[in-house]
Amino acid sequence: MAAKESGLRGVVAGRSALSSVDGEVGRLTYRGIDIADLVAAETTFEEVAYLLWHDELPSRSQLDALTNQLNESRGLPGPVMDMLASLPDDSTPMVALRTAVSMLGSFDPDQGDDSLEAAERKAVRLLAQTPNIVAQAGRLLEGRDPIDPPDGSIAESFLATYFGEAPKPEATRTIDVMLVLQADHEFNASTFAARVIAATLTDMHSAIAGAVGALRGPLHGGANQAVLEMLLQVTSPEEAEAWVLDKLAKRELVMGFGHAVYRTADPRATILREIARELAPASGHAEWFETSQVMEAVMLREKNLNSNVDFYAATVYASLGIPPDLFTPIFAISRMSGWTAHVLEQQGNNRIIRPRAEYVGHMDRPVTPMAERG
Amino acid sequence: MAAKESGLRGVVAGRSALSSVDGEVGRLTYRGIDIADLVAAETTFEEVAYLLWHDELPSRSQLDALTNQLNESRGLPGPVMDMLASLPDDSTPMVALRTAVSMLGSFDPDQGDDSLEAAERKAVRLLAQTPNIVAQAGRLLEGRDPIDPPDGSIAESFLATYFGEAPKPEATRTIDVMLVLQADHEFNASTFAARVIAATLTDMHSAIAGAVGALRGPLHGGANQAVLEMLLQVTSPEEAEAWVLDKLAKRELVMGFGHAVYRTADPRATILREIARELAPASGHAEWFETSQVMEAVMLREKNLNSNVDFYAATVYASLGIPPDLFTPIFAISRMSGWTAHVLEQQGNNRIIRPRAEYVGHMDRPVTPMAERG
Repeated sequence: MAAKESGLRGVVAGRSALSSVDGEVGRLTYRGIDIADLVAAETTFEEVAYLLWHDELPSRSQLDALTNQLNESRGLPGPVMDMLASLPDDSTPMVALRTAVSMLGSFDPDQGDDSLEAAERKAVRLLAQTPNIVAQAGRLLEGRDPIDPPDGSIAESFLATYFGEAPKPEATRTIDVMLVLQADHEFNASTFAARVIAATLTDMHSAIAGAVGALRGPLHGGANQAVLEMLLQVTSPEEAEAWVLDKLAKRELVMGFGHAVYRTADPRATILREIARELAPASGHAEWFETSQVMEAVMLREKNLNSNVDFYAATVYASLGIPPDLFTPIFAISRMSGWTAHVLEQQGNNRIIRPRAEYVGHMDRPVTPMAERG
Repeated sequence: MAAKESGLRGVVAGRSALSSVDGEVGRLTYRGIDIADLVAAETTFEEVAYLLWHDELPSRSQLDALTNQLNESRGLPGPVMDMLASLPDDSTPMVALRTAVSMLGSFDPDQGDDSLEAAERKAVRLLAQTPNIVAQAGRLLEGRDPIDPPDGSIAESFLATYFGEAPKPEATRTIDVMLVLQADHEFNASTFAARVIAATLTDMHSAIAGAVGALRGPLHGGANQAVLEMLLQVTSPEEAEAWVLDKLAKRELVMGFGHAVYRTADPRATILREIARELAPASGHAEWFETSQVMEAVMLREKNLNSNVDFYAATVYASLGIPPDLFTPIFAISRMSGWTAHVLEQQGNNRIIRPRAEYVGHMDRPVTPMAERG
């Protein structure tokens, strides 16, 4: 009856055919395909989103149809752009994304239609709109004017919109790989939140707004931003070992290590390490990669903890000139594919998710009259 | 290891000292005080919110301090009012509330401060702002201009803002009881969603926006609105038995019956039935109550299902002249107290909520080259 540990650790909360995580050997598959194979075959993020939604990789004509839908669906309604422009300067792109996703629910052509078919169409629109929201929110919060997103792949259109110029092919390819690697990860906290919300048979936008809010947390997607802040504190690779040991001695958290499921290397980190190894020196910040390598060795030696997906992601994004407050929103662009696929899977075979609490409070208290309180 | 049933039914997902639900005897307590005792003692919703947050009923001076904070915190920033005014006419107050809660996160004086102390202040503000959002969204979507919310209790200020005139004391008292009865209910779906989100250590507004989205679902808070739509379809109490039997024969859902936890009468329904019995005839719609009584008897006889909190809530709200699309938002005004208390409890002793999925999909699939797909 009772979960042996808090946090539902190890408790099976439902069935899924989307991704499998083998924490013992460090393997992640989407619809049965190993992510390492997807990256090796240069499968694009659009193909991966199609795979997650439809259980098959797309044919050329299916991919072309999806690409057209995405290009047509990027634009944001005027009131949503006005809302983004009205946010105070100390707001963040992640919070802007949460509000924009919620608001887009009111403007969706399928607003009020909570059917599964409508949810599928909403998923495509959200995947198209999210990179545009993130890019525009990033521009607006930096005091730059919004611009129209160009056609192209999600990675390409996002970079072009945010930076205001056509990205280099290597940058587009790198972001595309980042999007592929973070697309889905079983019942992680934000995905599970999306499923709990969706299981009341509410609309897609409710579930996704909740997921965005969950991903924002420092124990979840917010960790990649925290990793860079950490790397910037450690001024040289030579200092990294002492810095980590000092943190551990003070029992403070070292960001980007350990995982709720993986007991060995995070297979996403393995791929990201090689990308970071190449990108950091080319960007003039070889020290980020070198510092990361030292930290990784110390954490493995001292705590037996491996780096996770957030750890090298920070160096990869920073090497491309992306500011830290866009790291977690890019994670959201990627995970939008998995979140929407999980909502569709949940609502396709639904039961409301309603666990029990172990009650540990008072019992049998009377209503004390006000004069006798305090 | 595996949950025996889907939907985490009967699985303990964590500890809580907020409310206890005894499904066998039909008893609900907040911080150990029976809701029937709270209603009998005419405890106000503000006292209940204080009780949920602080584990004690407030003294006179504590209650006065809270009342002052609530009166001072009702107002909405101009950009949030603009956002509400910009929503299309076919939007709903529930979706408007979800977006407004998310957007308020950017304008909160404690924006960017994710500490527990800041979360407590955000909870008070959200409790004050929510009735104002719901009232203004209701007015705007009906084509009426917004007005400033007057000081007063939450029930009184909400009714005065929505209707644009001082409410009758009976109406205020009835809404106050409705708010008390729906304030908290253990790990219901929206509250559990709030806790899953909060457990990433994200901000209060992220957790609450997710909870609002979950409550919107027809399997959760959305049911009270569906009950009235059902009552309006059954044109007379004489037809009610045949109508229910026809629904059951077609295996269609009859809204407002059964509960994931209660195996006997829902204690909230027991109190609501008596309020509905009094209000419906006074409002000139005695047939709503009479029809409800017939439906209740048929459902108990045929399916052994009791009415739940949503069932008589519909008649109570409709008797006060409240339109159906505000029923679920009023539930949200009430549950805001419980949601925020659960977020504070979760973050006060936190572990990320990260269950596992039982993987039921393909294994060991290769990446098929595009030319060979489809």
